[in-house]
Amino acid sequence: MNDVSAPAIPAAPFSLAIDAMGGDHAPDIVLAGLELAADRHPNARMLLVGDESLLKPQLAKYPKAARICEIRHASSAISMEMKPTSALRLRDSSLRVAIDAVAHEEAGGIVSAGNSGAMLALAKIVLKTLPGVTRPAMAAVNPSARGDVVMLDLGANISCDTRNLVEFAVMGEAFAKAVLGLPAPRIGLLNVGVEELKGDERLRRAAEILRESPLSDQFYGFVEGHDITAGTTDVVVTDGFSGNIALKTGEGALKLVSQLLQRVFKTNLLTRIGYLLVRPGLERMKEWIDPRRYNGAVFVGLNGIVVKSHGGADAEGFAAAIDVAMDAVTHSINEKIRTRLAQVERLMSAPSENESAEASAVA
Amino acid sequence: MNDVSAPAIPAAPFSLAIDAMGGDHAPDIVLAGLELAADRHPNARMLLVGDESLLKPQLAKYPKAARICEIRHASSAISMEMKPTSALRLRDSSLRVAIDAVAHEEAGGIVSAGNSGAMLALAKIVLKTLPGVTRPAMAAVNPSARGDVVMLDLGANISCDTRNLVEFAVMGEAFAKAVLGLPAPRIGLLNVGVEELKGDERLRRAAEILRESPLSDQFYGFVEGHDITAGTTDVVVTDGFSGNIALKTGEGALKLVSQLLQRVFKTNLLTRIGYLLVRPGLERMKEWIDPRRYNGAVFVGLNGIVVKSHGGADAEGFAAAIDVAMDAVTHSINEKIRTRLAQVERLMSAPSENESAEASAVA
Repeated sequence: MNDVSAPAIPAAPFSLAIDAMGGDHAPDIVLAGLELAADRHPNARMLLVGDESLLKPQLAKYPKAARICEIRHASSAISMEMKPTSALRLRDSSLRVAIDAVAHEEAGGIVSAGNSGAMLALAKIVLKTLPGVTRPAMAAVNPSARGDVVMLDLGANISCDTRNLVEFAVMGEAFAKAVLGLPAPRIGLLNVGVEELKGDERLRRAAEILRESPLSDQFYGFVEGHDITAGTTDVVVTDGFSGNIALKTGEGALKLVSQLLQRVFKTNLLTRIGYLLVRPGLERMKEWIDPRRYNGAVFVGLNGIVVKSHGGADAEGFAAAIDVAMDAVTHSINEKIRTRLAQVERLMSAPSENESAEASAVA
Repeated sequence: MNDVSAPAIPAAPFSLAIDAMGGDHAPDIVLAGLELAADRHPNARMLLVGDESLLKPQLAKYPKAARICEIRHASSAISMEMKPTSALRLRDSSLRVAIDAVAHEEAGGIVSAGNSGAMLALAKIVLKTLPGVTRPAMAAVNPSARGDVVMLDLGANISCDTRNLVEFAVMGEAFAKAVLGLPAPRIGLLNVGVEELKGDERLRRAAEILRESPLSDQFYGFVEGHDITAGTTDVVVTDGFSGNIALKTGEGALKLVSQLLQRVFKTNLLTRIGYLLVRPGLERMKEWIDPRRYNGAVFVGLNGIVVKSHGGADAEGFAAAIDVAMDAVTHSINEKIRTRLAQVERLMSAPSENESAEASAVA
């Protein structure tokens, strides 16, 4: 992650609005996360949104958090089970009040550990998508052998067309620049093989557009599932269905190995001694692939930074989600998306897929 | 895997036809794999197809393999790079001659480590699909915390409709019965969430059909990516795009951890001692998730057992692919598919998705 203290915090009165009531352990975890964040972002100003009578005495227990937070009352909260349609009707929910603060340019972004469906629906309606973006996508950082990898979409869009995929590539590049601090992130398009003919027309056309675009130098081509953890590219672009499945399958595989390892080390006295000898390295390895370190998925493509923390995240995880939001706000991810989309737009408004495929075959 | 020595070997003169010329290290690895297989399947009869002048002296070096193999000459071989369309034209390739032997009921199935695209194309044309199967799928066994899990489709079909998914469920059940020896395998449909409303119409309708079908007791419902390695169900059904990505992402994640672990153990003298103390357990763990043990993907839904070994598999891996083929042949996987498909057929020939959704809403 970037050193966010370097660039100046943007002009909005609050760096971020924080939904104090979202998530499985709100508001405790939120406040404990802010306590950690206050050390990392001493110049940040946070708008803490939720039930004031509850938050006031709680916040007093977290002195560092209290120093950077201002409470704004919101009389209701959206439960994890609430349908997006019902959530949209609640005008005084902590999530809604926090998103409103972003819409009114009081805050550069919002972080919530609450209901993702409600969050995306509210953000789309209140903040609207960036000009030129047809579908916001869910992006997050994942571990790889070569460093951090940005993957999107992780589930905001079950099915995607060529244009969506190209937009995701643009948004993923901006994300990798802002959050990973890479000057020229390499972009891969997830497919079932690396050959040009693999996949469907939608993928092949997206690859064509990216090859012709200003991103061409950074476009690696098709990548496969194992390239995600190999770190073949810095950004992996896919539809929300495959992305969600890849994300969870990868997490599941890591969990399987961790369970098997625990069993190995707990076998007998000798293996327990073995564990003690390798513990420092194991701890570093655990940290490397720690899901808490990778907490904080961004709904990219909206007018404002919208970061979803895992509902069950602990304080460390919530603080990581705040880091992501601060990086995205401080490094103006949306400016980067806007500039790049304007460059790519011409290519995407080309004739329909089949027509242009014929045209390029003739050319 | 089942104990395949128990049931009688079926009536075809050869248990399997083996493509001796397919794969990165053919024919050496193929013969070394057969040498291992000869111990496990002493009553098997194998038709070894390839260049006779090359195979004859080589086979003499593998006495156990020689005992169960009969060579059949094929004058050409399909390279790994050859396009399926070109492969179809080669009537004397080792792959074609081997598949022909299955078509002529000389062999119960075929194993090849060669070109997958050519293999599927040839198998579809020469063997044809089973009655009622619209699309063959690629199925294989994967490790999980709870034991082996069958996943399909792993890449034979980039996009799938409701009917394809239901057929995959039927074929996956038969596979799990035959190859894993489970009396009533539980079936999950891969999705981005477990709630009934998740995913697209195609998935929701497939779930509806499976709930109404004779498989209903075994149908678990939707599963997510992490359920594959958790072993929530014995069979995981998905389209070939997501399946291929899930498979490779899972493998990639396991590889990442294995690389990180090696680094941990090689840090210094103490960690090397630590490694020695836990080595027996690590070896068992490595074996548990060893891709060689899971080598051998079956193209299910064809008139004959068609097993693809990984092109780079070693002898142990190739022998595992032979095990899968022997299990599938011996336990009559295709009979199981035929019987079950006949039961499910009525549900699938129901009116189009939207119409039947309305009908059931009225009912």
